[in-house]
Order: sequence, then C-alpha cells, then structure tokens
Amino acid sequence: MTKPLLIQGATVVNADREFKADVLCVDGQIAAVGPDLEAPAGADKLDGSGRYLMPGGIDPHTHMQLPFMGTVTRDDFFSGTAAALAGGTTSIIDFVIPDPQEPLMDAYRKWRGWAEKAASDYAFHVAITWWGDSVHRDMGTLVNEEGVNSFKHFMAYKNAIMCDDETLVNSFRRSLELGAMPTVHAENGELVFLLQAEMKAKGILGPEGHPLSRPPAVEAEAAQRAIAIADVLNVPIYIVHVSSAESAEAIARARARGQRVYGEVLAGHLVIDDSVYRDPDFVKAAAHVMSPPFRAKGHGQMLWRGLQSGSLHTTATDHCTFCAEQKAAGKDDFSKIPNGCGGVEERMAVLWHEGVNGGKLTPSEFVAVTSANAARLFNLYPKKGLIAAGADADLVLWDPAATQTLSVKTQHSLGDYNIFEGMTVQGKATHTLTRGHLAWADGDLRAVRGAGQYLKRAPFAPQ
Amino acid sequence: MTKPLLIQGATVVNADREFKADVLCVDGQIAAVGPDLEAPAGADKLDGSGRYLMPGGIDPHTHMQLPFMGTVTRDDFFSGTAAALAGGTTSIIDFVIPDPQEPLMDAYRKWRGWAEKAASDYAFHVAITWWGDSVHRDMGTLVNEEGVNSFKHFMAYKNAIMCDDETLVNSFRRSLELGAMPTVHAENGELVFLLQAEMKAKGILGPEGHPLSRPPAVEAEAAQRAIAIADVLNVPIYIVHVSSAESAEAIARARARGQRVYGEVLAGHLVIDDSVYRDPDFVKAAAHVMSPPFRAKGHGQMLWRGLQSGSLHTTATDHCTFCAEQKAAGKDDFSKIPNGCGGVEERMAVLWHEGVNGGKLTPSEFVAVTSANAARLFNLYPKKGLIAAGADADLVLWDPAATQTLSVKTQHSLGDYNIFEGMTVQGKATHTLTRGHLAWADGDLRAVRGAGQYLKRAPFAPQ
Amino acid sequence: MTKPLLIQGATVVNADREFKADVLCVDGQIAAVGPDLEAPAGADKLDGSGRYLMPGGIDPHTHMQLPFMGTVTRDDFFSGTAAALAGGTTSIIDFVIPDPQEPLMDAYRKWRGWAEKAASDYAFHVAITWWGDSVHRDMGTLVNEEGVNSFKHFMAYKNAIMCDDETLVNSFRRSLELGAMPTVHAENGELVFLLQAEMKAKGILGPEGHPLSRPPAVEAEAAQRAIAIADVLNVPIYIVHVSSAESAEAIARARARGQRVYGEVLAGHLVIDDSVYRDPDFVKAAAHVMSPPFRAKGHGQMLWRGLQSGSLHTTATDHCTFCAEQKAAGKDDFSKIPNGCGGVEERMAVLWHEGVNGGKLTPSEFVAVTSANAARLFNLYPKKGLIAAGADADLVLWDPAATQTLSVKTQHSLGDYNIFEGMTVQGKATHTLTRGHLAWADGDLRAVRGAGQYLKRAPFAPQ
Amino acid sequence: MTKPLLIQGATVVNADREFKADVLCVDGQIAAVGPDLEAPAGADKLDGSGRYLMPGGIDPHTHMQLPFMGTVTRDDFFSGTAAALAGGTTSIIDFVIPDPQEPLMDAYRKWRGWAEKAASDYAFHVAITWWGDSVHRDMGTLVNEEGVNSFKHFMAYKNAIMCDDETLVNSFRRSLELGAMPTVHAENGELVFLLQAEMKAKGILGPEGHPLSRPPAVEAEAAQRAIAIADVLNVPIYIVHVSSAESAEAIARARARGQRVYGEVLAGHLVIDDSVYRDPDFVKAAAHVMSPPFRAKGHGQMLWRGLQSGSLHTTATDHCTFCAEQKAAGKDDFSKIPNGCGGVEERMAVLWHEGVNGGKLTPSEFVAVTSANAARLFNLYPKKGLIAAGADADLVLWDPAATQTLSVKTQHSLGDYNIFEGMTVQGKATHTLTRGHLAWADGDLRAVRGAGQYLKRAPFAPQ
Ligand SMILES: [Zn+2]
Ligand SMILES: [Zn+2]
Ligand SMILES: [Zn+2]
Ligand SMILES: [Zn+2]
Ligand SMILES: [Zn+2]
Ligand SMILES: [Zn+2]
Ligand SMILES: [Zn+2]
Ligand SMILES: [Zn+2]
Repeated sequence: MTKPLLIQGATVVNADREFKADVLCVDGQIAAVGPDLEAPAGADKLDGSGRYLMPGGIDPHTHMQLPFMGTVTRDDFFSGTAAALAGGTTSIIDFVIPDPQEPLMDAYRKWRGWAEKAASDYAFHVAITWWGDSVHRDMGTLVNEEGVNSFKHFMAYKNAIMCDDETLVNSFRRSLELGAMPTVHAENGELVFLLQAEMKAKGILGPEGHPLSRPPAVEAEAAQRAIAIADVLNVPIYIVHVSSAESAEAIARARARGQRVYGEVLAGHLVIDDSVYRDPDFVKAAAHVMSPPFRAKGHGQMLWRGLQSGSLHTTATDHCTFCAEQKAAGKDDFSKIPNGCGGVEERMAVLWHEGVNGGKLTPSEFVAVTSANAARLFNLYPKKGLIAAGADADLVLWDPAATQTLSVKTQHSLGDYNIFEGMTVQGKATHTLTRGHLAWADGDLRAVRGAGQYLKRAPFAPQ
Repeated sequence: MTKPLLIQGATVVNADREFKADVLCVDGQIAAVGPDLEAPAGADKLDGSGRYLMPGGIDPHTHMQLPFMGTVTRDDFFSGTAAALAGGTTSIIDFVIPDPQEPLMDAYRKWRGWAEKAASDYAFHVAITWWGDSVHRDMGTLVNEEGVNSFKHFMAYKNAIMCDDETLVNSFRRSLELGAMPTVHAENGELVFLLQAEMKAKGILGPEGHPLSRPPAVEAEAAQRAIAIADVLNVPIYIVHVSSAESAEAIARARARGQRVYGEVLAGHLVIDDSVYRDPDFVKAAAHVMSPPFRAKGHGQMLWRGLQSGSLHTTATDHCTFCAEQKAAGKDDFSKIPNGCGGVEERMAVLWHEGVNGGKLTPSEFVAVTSANAARLFNLYPKKGLIAAGADADLVLWDPAATQTLSVKTQHSLGDYNIFEGMTVQGKATHTLTRGHLAWADGDLRAVRGAGQYLKRAPFAPQ
Repeated sequence: MTKPLLIQGATVVNADREFKADVLCVDGQIAAVGPDLEAPAGADKLDGSGRYLMPGGIDPHTHMQLPFMGTVTRDDFFSGTAAALAGGTTSIIDFVIPDPQEPLMDAYRKWRGWAEKAASDYAFHVAITWWGDSVHRDMGTLVNEEGVNSFKHFMAYKNAIMCDDETLVNSFRRSLELGAMPTVHAENGELVFLLQAEMKAKGILGPEGHPLSRPPAVEAEAAQRAIAIADVLNVPIYIVHVSSAESAEAIARARARGQRVYGEVLAGHLVIDDSVYRDPDFVKAAAHVMSPPFRAKGHGQMLWRGLQSGSLHTTATDHCTFCAEQKAAGKDDFSKIPNGCGGVEERMAVLWHEGVNGGKLTPSEFVAVTSANAARLFNLYPKKGLIAAGADADLVLWDPAATQTLSVKTQHSLGDYNIFEGMTVQGKATHTLTRGHLAWADGDLRAVRGAGQYLKRAPFAPQ
Repeated sequence: MTKPLLIQGATVVNADREFKADVLCVDGQIAAVGPDLEAPAGADKLDGSGRYLMPGGIDPHTHMQLPFMGTVTRDDFFSGTAAALAGGTTSIIDFVIPDPQEPLMDAYRKWRGWAEKAASDYAFHVAITWWGDSVHRDMGTLVNEEGVNSFKHFMAYKNAIMCDDETLVNSFRRSLELGAMPTVHAENGELVFLLQAEMKAKGILGPEGHPLSRPPAVEAEAAQRAIAIADVLNVPIYIVHVSSAESAEAIARARARGQRVYGEVLAGHLVIDDSVYRDPDFVKAAAHVMSPPFRAKGHGQMLWRGLQSGSLHTTATDHCTFCAEQKAAGKDDFSKIPNGCGGVEERMAVLWHEGVNGGKLTPSEFVAVTSANAARLFNLYPKKGLIAAGADADLVLWDPAATQTLSVKTQHSLGDYNIFEGMTVQGKATHTLTRGHLAWADGDLRAVRGAGQYLKRAPFAPQ
C-alpha cells in the first residue's frame, strides 16, 4: 500500500474543463478533488503550483514483446510500460495476434503471460486473423469472461495475418452481437502485394519503395470498405492509425451521416513526413518503416484538423521497436524490413507541444485525445481518463514551461532509434502516478516490474 | 433559503457518462454526489429510483416579452420561464434587440428590467443592429461590466434590424477583441426581400408564400458568408437555428477545416416539416410562421445527423409566442405575419423522445445537446450543465417510462398554439429544481415570480 | 445497297449543338450535312420539319439471349435489337460472360455466334470472372485481334461469377497495358451473401427482401473500392448501372480529384423507386428484381444531377428479359428470382420526357448521354454518336410533339412485362435508320434479321 | 478579300475529337474540311504535316486600353490583339466598365470606339457597377440591339466599382429575363477593405501585403454568395478568374447539385504561386499584383483538376498591362499598386505545355478549355471554337515539337514585364489565321490595325 499523496495547487484538467483544485490519492484511487484539501496523517505532499494535473495518458495501440521472425521487439512489457510512465502514459492497450488457425484462447493466454511483468496497467485487443466456429465461440469467451471488448482486423499483410471480406463481415457481425468494438488496420493487402512486386520489378529495393507500395489511396480504400461494412451491419467501428487526408475524410463523411466511426492517429503521423524514406542512410530510412508509412507534407495538417473537429478521437503510437540489426533483414528488399517504430514515451510531449502550444488544442482537448476518449471508447472510463473521486490515481503532473529535447540518448525505451530525435518541445511530465504510486518523479524512474494490472473491460450493450 | 434536498437512487447523467448516485442539494447548490449519501438533518428526500437525474435544460434562444408592432409576445419573462421549468429547462438565454441607432446600453437596461420577474435563471445575447463608435464602446461595457459574452447579428429583416457586411465585419472583429462569441441569424435579407415581392406579385399572399420566400439556399448563403468572415477574422462563430441540410453541411465543412464553428438547432426544425404552411386553415398555417421556416422532409434527418456527429451542438426553441390575433396582422400578406412559435416547455421531451427513444442519442448526448454544450459555449459551465459538487442545483428528474401528449390545452405557456399539438412522447420531467427549489413536482408548478437570477457570463480570453 | 435518302428540314442535334440542316445518306453512311442539299437521282426523301434528327441511341449495357439456369432470356439478339430500333437505339454493347475457368475465347466465340442474327450493330464487353495465364493472354487476343476494348468485372454474385480483389487488380493492370477500359458491376458480394441469409433467417422470403439485401452502402462500397484500385493503378474506370446517390457521389469525388472515372445510369433507376418491391402481386414485384435494385425516392434525383453535372456519362438499360415463368423460380426465395428487366426500347423516350421536357437536359445533352458519350468512351466515335459526313447513317428522327403511352401491349420486346407500364411520355422516335436502312418508320418495324454488324473497337493507347 | 488558303495534312483538333484532314479557307470562312481536298485556282497552300490545326484561341477576359487614374494600360486594342494573334488567340472578350452613375450606353459607346483599331475579333462583357431604372433599361438595349449577352459584377473594390447585394440581385434577375449570362469577380470587398487597413496598421506596406489582404476565403465567400444568389434566382452564372481551391470546390459542389455554374481560370493562376510577392525587388513583386492574387502552391493543382473534371470550363488571362512606372504608384502602399498582369500572348503555349505535355489534358480538352467552351458559353459557337465548314477561318497551326522560351524580350505585347519570364515550353503557334488572313506566320506578325470585327452575340432564350 502506498502512502496517501496530496497534490496541491495544480490546475486540474479534465476533458470537459480545467479548474484549480487539490487532489488526494489514497490506496491507489483518487479519494478527493477540491479546493484546499487537508492532508491525512502520514500523507506525502506534492506541489503542483504552476502545473497542470491531468489523467495519465492511455496509449490504445502498442506492440510490446511482439514475436516476429524468431525474434521479438526490443521493448518487452516491462521496459515498454516503464518508458510509457516516464512520458506520462499510465495505460496501454496492446494486441493479441493469433497466427491463422491458432486458437484465440491459446494466443490470448500466451500474451497474458508475457504481460505480467508490466509496470503500468494494460489491456488487450484481440486480432481476428481467420474465421471458424472456434473463433466465433472464443470471441464470446473473451468478451464474457476475459474482459476483452475490442477485436482487431488486419486488412493488409497478404499471405500472413490479412483477413478477407468474409472474415471481416462475420467478425463484425459477431462483435455487434457481443457488444465489442471492431477495429481495423486499413490498407488493401492485394494492392500492397501488387505494388511491392512492381517496385521490386523496377529495381526499387530500398526503403523508398515502402511508401510507394502503400500510397494513401491504398489506405483510404480499406478504410472506406471497413466503414461501409460496419454501416451495413450497423456496428460501430474504430480505425487504427489513420495516416492520410483521404482516410480522415472517409471517416468524417461517415460521421456526417450519423455513423458511429472513430479514428486513431499516431503521434508520428502528426509531425513526421515521408522525406525520411529518402534518407541515404539505410539505418535511418529503415528505422521509419512502419505501416501505414509516413505521408507527404499536408496529410499531417488534415489529421490535426480531424482531432480538432472531432472526427478523429484518440492518439496512439503503434509502439513496436525493432532495432537496426532486426531492420537489416530488409537490407536488399524493403518489403522484408520489420515494420515498426517507437514513441510510447514521447507521445504526450509531442501532442502537447504541437497541439497545445501550437494553438490547435486546448488543454481539455489534449486530455480528450490522449486519455479520456480512449477510456470512453474502450470502456475504461471513468476509472481511467478522468480526475474525479473514485477514479484510479493514474495521473500526470505537467510542467508547461519545461522544455526537453527528445532523443534516443535520453529515452527509457530499449529501442535504438527515436523517430522524434532532436525535436525540442516545451511541456513535460514531471511526475507520473500509476494507481497512486509515484513511478516517475523529476527524472527518476521508479517503475515496478509486475505492478501493472490487467484491465478487464466490460462489453457495451450487446445486440 | 430552501431546505436541503437529497435525491436518492437516480441514474445521474452528465455529458460524459451516466452513473448511479445520490445527489444532495444545499443552499441552492449541489453539495455532494455519491453513493448512499446521508441526508442532513431536516433535509427533504426525493426518490429517484428508475429515473434519470440530469442537469436542467438550457434554452439558449428565447424571446420572452418581445415588443413588436406596438404589442408584445404573449409570454413574458415570468410565464415563459415558468413554462420552461415545467418542461425541465432551468435557464434561458434571451436577446436584447436595440433598434437601429438606439444606444445598446439603453436597450440592455430595458430588457434587464423586464426580466426581473423571471422564475428561472436567465442571460442575454445583445444584438448588434447598427454600427458606430458608441456601439464599439458599449460592446466593451457589456462584456467587461455586465457579463454579456455573446452578440447577435441578424442577416435578414431588411429595412429593420438587418446588419450589412460592414457592421458584421466590424462587430465580429470587436467580439474577438473582447473575448465574446458572435452569433448570427443566417438568412440573406436581400434575397428574402426580392422573393417576398415576387411571391406577392404572383398573387401568393397566404402563409404558403412564407417558405417560398426563404428557401434553404437563402439560409445557406448567409451561413456560409458568416462562417467565411469569421474564418478570415479568426473568430469563433455560433449559428442560431440551423434549419436546413445545406447550412448544416456548411458548418460541417468549416469544422472539418478545423474552424471553431458551432450550430444550434430548434426542436421544431427537428420534427416538423413544411407541409404545415399548406394547411387551408390560416390560423394553423400562420401559427407556424417563423424564420427560418420549417423545411421539406429530409432536412430534419440531416439536423439529427449534425447533432449525432458533433457538427451541431445545442438545441433551442426560439420561443416567441404571438397569438392568433397578432398573427392575423398578416392575413392578406404573409410577410406581415409576426414571426415566431413556442416550444420552451416541450423541447426536452421532444428531444428525448425522438433522440433517445429513437436511437439517435445516448442519454449523455441528450444532456450535451440540451444543456452542457450551451453552458460550455456561453461560459456558464460548470455552474450550469453539470451535476457535480459545487454546481448550481438546477436539475431535472426524468421518468423515461412516463408518456405525455403535448397540447395547448395542458401547456403552461400563455401562447394559444402548440406546434407539437397531439404528439405523444415517452419521457417526462417529473421534477425540476432551480437553485435547489422544487419548482415543478409531479404536475404541480411552483414557479416563483422574480426568483430567477441574471447570469453574468465571463468573456473568453480576449485577443 | 439501300437507296440514297435525303432527310430534309429537321433540326440536327449533336452533342455540341443543334442546327437546321438536311442530311443525305448514301450507302449506309452520311454523305452530306448542310442546308438545302440536293437529292441525288433516285433518292428517297424524308420530311423532318418540326422534328429533331439525332444520332441513333447506343445502349452500352444489354444482355440479349443470356443463358441462365438451363433457359435463356426471352429476347434474343434479333428481337432485342429490333425492339431497340423501334425505340431509336441503333447500337448495343452486350456482354460475353465466361463461366469461371471457361476459356475467354470459347465464350467469346459462342456469343459472337449467337449475335449473328442481330438487326442492329453490336459490340461486346467481355467479363473477367476468374484469373490465370490464359485469361491474361486471351485479353490480349481480344483487344488486338477481335476489337474488344472493354472488360467487365462482377463484384457481386458470390460462388458464381464474382471476381475477388486479386482478379480485379490483375485484370485492371492488364487492361491498362492493353489500352482497354475496365468496367465493374459494383456491389459487395460478401455483404449481399450475408444479408440474403439474414433476411431469409428472419423469414423475409419475398421480393421485398431483394432491396433489403442490397442497400445503397453495399453498392457504394464496391464502387469506391473499384475506383480506388483504378486510381492506384492509374487506369480509367467505368461503373455500370450506378443506382444510388452514394455511388454517384463516390464517382463525383474521384472526378474532382482529376481521376478518369465514368458512370452509367439505367433509365429505370432514373424514374422508378423501390416501392415496386412491396407490391402484393408477386409477379409485379418479381418483374422488378434486378441488381442493383430500384432505390428509395431521392436517389433518382441525384442520378439526374450526375448526368447534368457531367459526373455520370451514359444511359443504358441492362436489358435482360426474364418472363413471369422464369421469375417464378424465386417464388419462395427472393434470392432465386432471376435478375433482370427490359427497357432497350423505351430508354430514349423516357430520357427525353423526363430529361428534356423536364428541364433537366438540353437536346444536345440528351444526345450526349444517350449516344455520343458511349461512342466516345468505347471508341465508336465518330462513326457512331455523331451526325457528320462520313459517319454511319445510324439516325433517329424525333417528334417532340408526339405522345405515347409505354406498355407491354405495344412493345416489340418479347419480354412479358414493361417496367414503364402506363407511363405517358411526350417525344417519340418516328423513324430509325441503321446504316441508312429505314428500320422503323411511323410505327412500321422493318428490322432485318442478321443485318447488324459486329463493331470492332480499337483500343486506346496502351501503356 | 484574301486569297483562298488550303491547309494540308494537319491533324485537326476539335473539342470532340481529332482527325487528319485538309482545311480550305475561302473568304474568311472555312469552306471545307476533309481528306485530300483540292486547292481552288489561285489558292495558297500551307503544309500542316506533323502539326495540329485547332480553332483559334478565345480569351474571354482581357482589359485592353483600360483607363486608370488618368492613364491607361500599355496595350491598346491593336497591340493587345496583335500580341494575342502571335500566340494563337483570335478573339477576345473585353469589358466595358461604367463608372458608378455613368449611363451604360455612354460607356459602351466609348469602348466600342476604342476597340475599332483591334486586329482580331472582339466582344464585350458590360459591367453593372450601380443600379437604377436606366441601368435596367440599358441592359435591355445592350442585349437586344447591341449583341451583348453577358454582364459583369465586381464584388470587390469598395468605394469604387463594387456592387452590393441589392445590385447583384437585381442585375442577375434582369439578366435572366434577357437571356444574358451574369458573371462575377468574386472577392468580398468589405473584408478586403478591412484587411488592407489592418495590414497597413501593422506596417505591412509592400506587395507582400497584397495577398495577405485577399486570402482564399475572401474569394470563396464571394463565389459562394454569387452562386447561391444565382441558384435562388435560377439563373446560370460564370465566375471569372477562379484562383483558389476553395472557390473551385464551391463551383464543383454547386454543379453536383445540378446548378449551371461555370468557372474561368487564368493561365497565370495555373502555374505561378504567391512566392512572387516576397521578391525583394519591388518591381518584380509589384508586377505580379493582380486580384485575386497568385496563391500558395497546391491551389494550382486543384484548378487543373477543375479543368480535367469539367467543373472549370475556360481559360483566360485578365490581360491588363501596367508598366513599372504605373505600378510605382503603390511604392509605399500596396493597395495603390494598379492591379493587372499580361498573358494574352502566352496563354495557349502555357496551357499546352503544362496541360497536354503534362498529361493533364488531351488535345481535344485543350481546344475545349482554350476556345470551344468560351465560344459555347458566350454564344459565339459554332462560328468560333470549331473547325467545320461554315465556321470563321480563325485557326491556329500548332507545332507540338517546337520549343520556345517566354520572355518580355521576345513578346509582342507592349507591357514591360512577362509573368512567365524564362519558362521554356514545348508547343508553339507557328501560324495564326483570323478570318482567313494569315496574321502570324513563322515568327512574322502581320496583324492589321482595324481588321478585327465586333462580335454580336445573340442572347440565350430569355425567360
Ligand atoms: Zn497496423
Ligand atoms: Zn499496430
Ligand atoms: Zn432568428
Ligand atoms: Zn430568434
Ligand atoms: Zn450488373
Ligand atoms: Zn448487366
Ligand atoms: Zn477581376
Ligand atoms: Zn478583369
């Protein structure tokens, strides 16, 4: 049991408003929020004056300890969540990804085991990579017994985990029945497959071939298809890592029809453009290979506008750290470069700097897109995503005046590259609490291996 | 001082979530929200089981006691706010409308005097109907000393209160400077003027000429113009009574560009169509004459979609009750029919029935569009629009199972017509509290003349 | 060799303009167009005063003599083209539809044989229903040797002729290489399959289940997918039978990006709505079963707007006549009703009446959407689709004052139902010439079995 | 009378198609178009092999000899039309611009007098700068007796020629009545006025203040307003010099609703961006001052897409040549720099190079947007804009292989600046005929002062 902690004098920021208040944390929960609270006996105090106190960040899209080609990503559930805490993020939603034909429950249990070492709370989306009676049944078990209320569908990665329209349609239908949220990685896998072959036939083998084989229209097609299927089946849908203006517009169009469509955007897609793939240094270019790729200048602006207007809802990172040695597998063929970049530690700072300092978001909107919206969409709210009595004491104390320069040299992630390298941002998490434990305090990382809890998420009303 | 009141066992609904809790009201404010609260000594209790407890409605667009052609609307500030309370609405924002050349402060003081008899809280938008140095100065006084943070602009009503682009541009600029929100009645007055003349030249003199002289494109033009001017001047803008698909789309397009545009929709426009103007009974047809007019079927659906997708934000009524005798002034010329309809009493029930029962809105979204959004946009939040400790005890207890049939026979408004006549709705305000006073209780209206308070609204950050 | 024919005094209408001129036809071709032409010796004369002389209609979408379930459609290539001539249409483009795995050339030769009895000129789109090396090769043969420059892809009809994305992508790519136009029937076959099963599971077995299993979003999804694939591969694309507002908008959006997308609309979709499926008489309801189905009121208006604004280009019929006995195969299961309706004979009159008389199209625009645009898109222009010296003498003389009532009783098609039954239209083909032969003259049908010629169509510049 | 001329072996390009043919010109008209024509006795011959023969360009927007501040533009009607001929343009439509309160007929006669020296054919749009009974009457005289079928409205230039909404509405209505086309210069003059004052208040006095005071939203607002008014009054409308993505989209949206809206784009806006205003050399920066201004990169692409998709229709230049000395009037105040740039000579080459060579337009589409569409919209077709027997022999012979570098040093316009300076383009007018006279032949300019004729243009069907 941690000692009670009283945070005094900060400006509390929730998604609906900001206000001056003290916040008292007891036994891992917020016990009180109000002016001039009295500290219980034995309580620690933390001075929040001149700072914002916000709900800890939720990163709804990470891949810690992801097995790939006989190896795994550099960050496991401990190092990854520790890095998250250092950046002000207190919960992640990771992915269980069964191989085709692998029973869902087997994969699920495997990932649950791996995640026990996490330092922050965590939950799982479960990917539907194939279809069959057991999949139908296991989806029910996951929702009703295991607290899973979202399923993931890869529309790309042909000959691997790509699911065809038949699987998509059946899984969406089943999700509706169970009260779970279907989510999609939206890229047309057939087009990617053809374009990769064509690039290679033309002799384009380096990382510059990566974005050429996955243009925005490839993403927009899949987004529109998933949205249309969801519309026909009357199920809500969440599009992960929306990277292009075209996809964002597809979501906005659907929402304007009244459809329940939600979009996630990655911190990287908001600030990095596709010039990185033309870097002559393979290591640098390859370090940016992820899907969807970084886009031409201009797309980022449309993603910001989506966050501003409410047609995009959450920010994530798709944190998935392969090191240079692993990336080298695609030295002679860009299509073999393991896809993935880091960011779980930098997301909050990048969003604050570009969003709030840049005049695009108010502090309340910042809380909405980094925490509250994810909590609401995946049914973690109000335990997560809100500062109120009764909520988990997952908090970040934010100094809007402090500056920091993001770099691989100072990061806590075990990845060997930082896609935000050299970016100087104003605004910084000075303290992070996970269930009342001060896991990050003025540069001191006190993450506890295994302290994180698995978050069971209740389904929405099934239909 | 009213006695403390403990409302027990209801489902509290805020814009962000619903939860079971007791709510304790003391001295006109909410003292506590939580499970199993204890009643203070002498407190009354109210059983909320099986009901929703929501923030009282805010109607951001009413015209009580509006002077017109030597007469005034039937509802004054007492009867109008009493009717509001009977329907679950606890605050209104009315309009001060100076004549051209009339000093703003004179008009403002006149309206403040009229409003002293109100039974619920109230605030004022002030209309800018002309331009000059004194207007510039008085806007400053109103914002800085009188708690006005929104100004209204009529783009229609040529030769009366219509303001031209020069006034619009200057007033928007001044609003930005002061941190006030400009709002517009969006119809192109020159087109209305021409079309009215043409209808009459064709011999169309009855109420059916009213919608013909104000087609959707007339509204959309003005909405687009106001939005464009606001965009160029970098000032937020609020469009009152959006009635057509075209205007709603103009707002959605601007928001998709990241512009801060807000839209209001009237309960009537959501459920009534323009067939009413073809009623052979002049009294009925004339009773529906308001501007913008009711629209062809199909527009309503787009307005609902706007509320669902977040491109429209508030619901109002433009409550403005002229009786049959007054409407008869336009017996031989539709352009002389005083514009206005009632609704302040029915709005909440109509929105609940069509919105929540109809599957278009969740209860939280209902609270957002009937109360919380207006409170936030006009800076009344969190005193209004939220159930939380410290907020004003403006509350409505809602029975989702009760049905009622809306009718002029049972209404409390002094108007002699009910545009929702005969509509049976499920969902009903059983109790309404204004600052902790039970002003409506199971059919018993206990509104107190003069009990309402004027709401000073702080400006937003001026620029 | 027919005798020369001089048509005097008509208003000649081309897609670019109308003008008074005489037109001389010699040896199946237009020999001269001009004022006051002299008739050669032995020439017949036809008085065109008070009438329009227009290029004969081109119906780019028919299915004559289509084999189905051991039977064939009622109209064969003779009766179908004869009916066409009676309505002013002088060319059709029909479809060769190989079974999956059937060699393209075999199917092509079979259809060529069937078509030899045609009374008007004809060409073929060839459907790509599967993929393989021989398909790739045969596409080349068809383009380079057989005068085929367009290929059809069915995105619906799962477990039959539906082609998956892999086939689509490969065939589009091959089309580009050859300079041929890919075309698609746009409906998502997986969704149709699921929805059909669901309707039946709910006990909806009659024709009313047909539109419920193919809502507009099912069509829009496929249209968007095909457009996106074409965009990525940089190939033009032609969407057949656009029936819904959503599909039309998808085309318009793509065109606004500069993409070369073309849309076809059926006469039936322009004027008939989905109330037909709720007719209690199975025969009537089933007679309207075609895909995409007739739509709710409102869609037709958007299709007209597409023709007006140039985002839709051609009008067709999908003429495919199954009689009541054949339709009865689906008496207990709507999904077994053979899909298809007639219309090849009525298209021109319906388009004129609703389009030109209705103020939506000028006569030149009528020529564009009934003839010239199809000729240009499928490379038949200027031999077809234009009145100019050197063009084929395929002409229709049009009396804008004559009225006719469309009916199965007076039609020349062998179908036993007329979807335009009872519609009285003003405007009528009084004379139709095919290659200078007067095949329809004031109610006298003189169609000649086998007189029609196969139209070889050169490819566009291959890439 | 010029000698007959036979142009042999060229590829004739019309808006609907291209074909090999000889073209015979006799007495100022095209006498025949066909293969292997025989030259009449005494005819000259011109070898067109390897070249395109196209209808002479029509520039629907020029200001020759425009009076301004006591001086006039450098190009008068002779030098301006001579320059046009050197570039392949054979007709211009210029503007009569009455001062406010000046009788229309007086202004009209003044301009007719000035134009008598023109070397090519010409017509006039007449500007409506004020409203009154005489304006109403003179519009009728101009249409019915003087062959004017289009009127211009300036929505900018406050305190000068700007017309308010009342004038706009009345003039549009009168245009409809007469069968004339209203056209607008779309910029919101009130906003420009305010923004100019603000820029100057901030100390921004140089040419960089010009685009800052006329951002795209200022143009889009006016375009939308004009379109909406036209929509309500049911009159077609033509927007001159569409320069921004936002305006182009407003037109496209209106067209998608079926409205008859037409858009013109200037050659300069297609290829030049707003970086020119930041040139430290005042002479250069000021030379580019015109309204609407050149725009940020990206807008040009959207204008090209408008031409491709058919939502923009014509290309023009707004040719209006003020020299450095004249531009110097605004040395200390950008708002005093006379607005205007040249281009009448370069338009065809710029359009060909960027459009046809750049893969955006086919040769037929080039003819449409440089000649045929303007001819059709302003009722000059088929005398102008078409190569066919009976049309005027206004022709340009185009060498697609020749290159030229555009420069003030080699231009024929009397302006002292060339906005396309240094641009090397492939494609060149080698010969230009005006009414059969070879006015430009392989670099030899043989323009004849006063040879141009005034083009009377019949109204469209009045309503
Ligand atoms: Zn992904
Ligand atoms: Zn991922
Ligand atoms: Zn109003
Ligand atoms: Zn009002
Ligand atoms: Zn089909
Ligand atoms: Zn078909
Ligand atoms: Zn202009
Ligand atoms: Zn001009």
